[in-house]
Amino acid sequence: MQCEIITIGDEILIGQIVDTNSAWMAKELNLAGIMVKQITSVSDNKQHIMNALNEARTRVDVILITGGLGPTKDDITKATLCEYFDTTLVRNWDVYREIKKVFDARELPYTALNQKQSDVPVNCQVIMNSKGTAQGMWFEEYGKVFVSMPGVPYEMIAMMNVFVIPKLKEKFETPFILHQTILIQGIGESFLADKIAKWEDALPKGFKLAYLPATGNLRLRLSATGEDKGLLEKQMKGLITKLTPIISDYIYGYDDETMEQIVGRLLMEKGRKLCTAESCTGGYIAHRITSVPGSSVYFEGSLITYSYEIKEHILGVKKETLEKYGAVSEQVVLAMAKAAREQFKTDYSIAASGIAGPSGGTNEKPVGTVWIAISTPHKTFAKRYQFGNDRERNIIRTSVTALNLLRMELLKD
Amino acid sequence: MQCEIITIGDEILIGQIVDTNSAWMAKELNLAGIMVKQITSVSDNKQHIMNALNEARTRVDVILITGGLGPTKDDITKATLCEYFDTTLVRNWDVYREIKKVFDARELPYTALNQKQSDVPVNCQVIMNSKGTAQGMWFEEYGKVFVSMPGVPYEMIAMMNVFVIPKLKEKFETPFILHQTILIQGIGESFLADKIAKWEDALPKGFKLAYLPATGNLRLRLSATGEDKGLLEKQMKGLITKLTPIISDYIYGYDDETMEQIVGRLLMEKGRKLCTAESCTGGYIAHRITSVPGSSVYFEGSLITYSYEIKEHILGVKKETLEKYGAVSEQVVLAMAKAAREQFKTDYSIAASGIAGPSGGTNEKPVGTVWIAISTPHKTFAKRYQFGNDRERNIIRTSVTALNLLRMELLKD
Repeated sequence: MQCEIITIGDEILIGQIVDTNSAWMAKELNLAGIMVKQITSVSDNKQHIMNALNEARTRVDVILITGGLGPTKDDITKATLCEYFDTTLVRNWDVYREIKKVFDARELPYTALNQKQSDVPVNCQVIMNSKGTAQGMWFEEYGKVFVSMPGVPYEMIAMMNVFVIPKLKEKFETPFILHQTILIQGIGESFLADKIAKWEDALPKGFKLAYLPATGNLRLRLSATGEDKGLLEKQMKGLITKLTPIISDYIYGYDDETMEQIVGRLLMEKGRKLCTAESCTGGYIAHRITSVPGSSVYFEGSLITYSYEIKEHILGVKKETLEKYGAVSEQVVLAMAKAAREQFKTDYSIAASGIAGPSGGTNEKPVGTVWIAISTPHKTFAKRYQFGNDRERNIIRTSVTALNLLRMELLKD
Repeated sequence: MQCEIITIGDEILIGQIVDTNSAWMAKELNLAGIMVKQITSVSDNKQHIMNALNEARTRVDVILITGGLGPTKDDITKATLCEYFDTTLVRNWDVYREIKKVFDARELPYTALNQKQSDVPVNCQVIMNSKGTAQGMWFEEYGKVFVSMPGVPYEMIAMMNVFVIPKLKEKFETPFILHQTILIQGIGESFLADKIAKWEDALPKGFKLAYLPATGNLRLRLSATGEDKGLLEKQMKGLITKLTPIISDYIYGYDDETMEQIVGRLLMEKGRKLCTAESCTGGYIAHRITSVPGSSVYFEGSLITYSYEIKEHILGVKKETLEKYGAVSEQVVLAMAKAAREQFKTDYSIAASGIAGPSGGTNEKPVGTVWIAISTPHKTFAKRYQFGNDRERNIIRTSVTALNLLRMELLKD
């Protein structure tokens, strides 16, 4: 079974936004055993949309459409689909009430324009939008499936995960696809490839390895396609068992768990508490930790010290240490980690101090120099890293590296 | 004159890479007055590529193709174009010598596979590749222009800048295109649309308005196309002048500036300093502020207080206030903002306390309840917001809203 993704909206065609929706959809569909034959981006123009639908219909079984469902005048997808299927809009009172709830809860007036969002084509099945007010629509016409979803990424993602992909898998026979993702930190793509070259060359037929690098970490995705589910699962298990000892120093987890979820789970299991003292990361480590629901159980707080004064007066790093070694130094980052653990009365702490860039570097401490310290009930230690020139990437890499250092200590303790 | 972008390659269709090439091309073409009518991503499949070319030819004057020009077996664009134009490959000795130079310089063997890269279709004009070994090709057939370029971003970018865009502008008369983006915060899409309905209905011919919503803010993009640059610029200016007073409360900036850049610029101009005290945002406000290069000039730091104890003992909020009103209250958020400003010795502070979710809500304070306080040299005030159920979005919306509240105070002071 093949599908086509059609994205509607001038913002893609004038280059104002990058089409990340299609990449996400293509990846998820692929994982579900559904092949994407073509991705087409068209303008907010009725005739153009209808032509794209006609062309797609000749190629594929399923057409997934995103965008153009907002309440404003430039959004014409719903009216166009009505014309395309030669049908009319009718008010859906379930939708009407659901949207009304959202507006009432937020104490906003439910205007006529908003009410119009509950009008849907007669021939569609409504896909409820749990994250917004534009509903999705599922059509079965001309022997094909057409699905229309909002272009807002998290709204589309929720609909795909909860409704569209499960329903497609139910309706069409898809091959069995098995994936296992191994989460890697602390080694670059090419070095990793060298280390596992022999293992990779010996992969059995039907197995495929993908390197998915991100900032600060990397995912290895091993995929298998076939008919015999039991055999594939057995082979997959055997391959992972062979791979693990080769790169055990770099594996921090599997599949969709994030570094901050793993750290949180370990802290929770052990009933321990954490705080951070951040300079160059400016709160990003704390942000990642607190992005996990329930993190208030194990996270006490953080002190972000962007100046000498704050490092000294609030955190309690000695003036002499700061003056003698500078803020980006082993001595200061160790003092930050110890002081934070004492002040916040936690079992563990993370401290980071570095030169995020793009300016502020010296010959001795170029941009990308970062010191990270971890303090535990047993010891406090620091490590120096040399990252690159990009501020955003340096902040992310420092955060991931720091959380992984803490994770390794938590496993030992 | 309109063009279509066709990207060739399975990696986009399985979601392994995001198609940033098309976004870059669309933006540059648009700036050059060349409209992109459609973007189409197809697989490494001969018949599929030929169908895409046939369809594109019915829509546009110029077809820009990227990808599939490497030396390996999976790259079939050149052979496909040969068949499409019913022509043959012939060795181009200029290209042969240029590529040989590259291989000699890097002391690599010039293999038969690499030599084949100097074979080009008889009917094309070669576009020399200054950054790699795969040449670009310019065809004029069936009354249309077809351009084939490598998929490697910096190779394609160099060809577009040096050869393709200049030649297209020479060959075709292109209209003048003008864009102005207005950055909006504090009002939803539909309410904004209601407010500016009259203004929008009266837009002159050639002008088009797009609503581009994001989490916590929204962009309005006004685009104009025409022949007379001076007239368009004058009209654009007039329209913005008319629009501004209608929604002045909600405009925080223009074009590509971010909220944190604007706040940073204002603090810098006034020589003032800032700190934050964060509970539900867990460091995300500080992260946004410090994501701006040079923010250490005006940002002192932040205290992230995820527990009562830290709010009391480190920040200095009174125990009675916490116990009487609870952490998510006007009284506590005001005390947080005041205490932070005193402790960090800054001119301004932001404080936020709320229930980010997904759990932790009560009837009185449901998930999404957020209090934000701003403290300035003149006053300290707090506002209550009711956001939604999504943790990540609540954190983002709180941050954007808080930064905008501060921005408005900075403008007054």
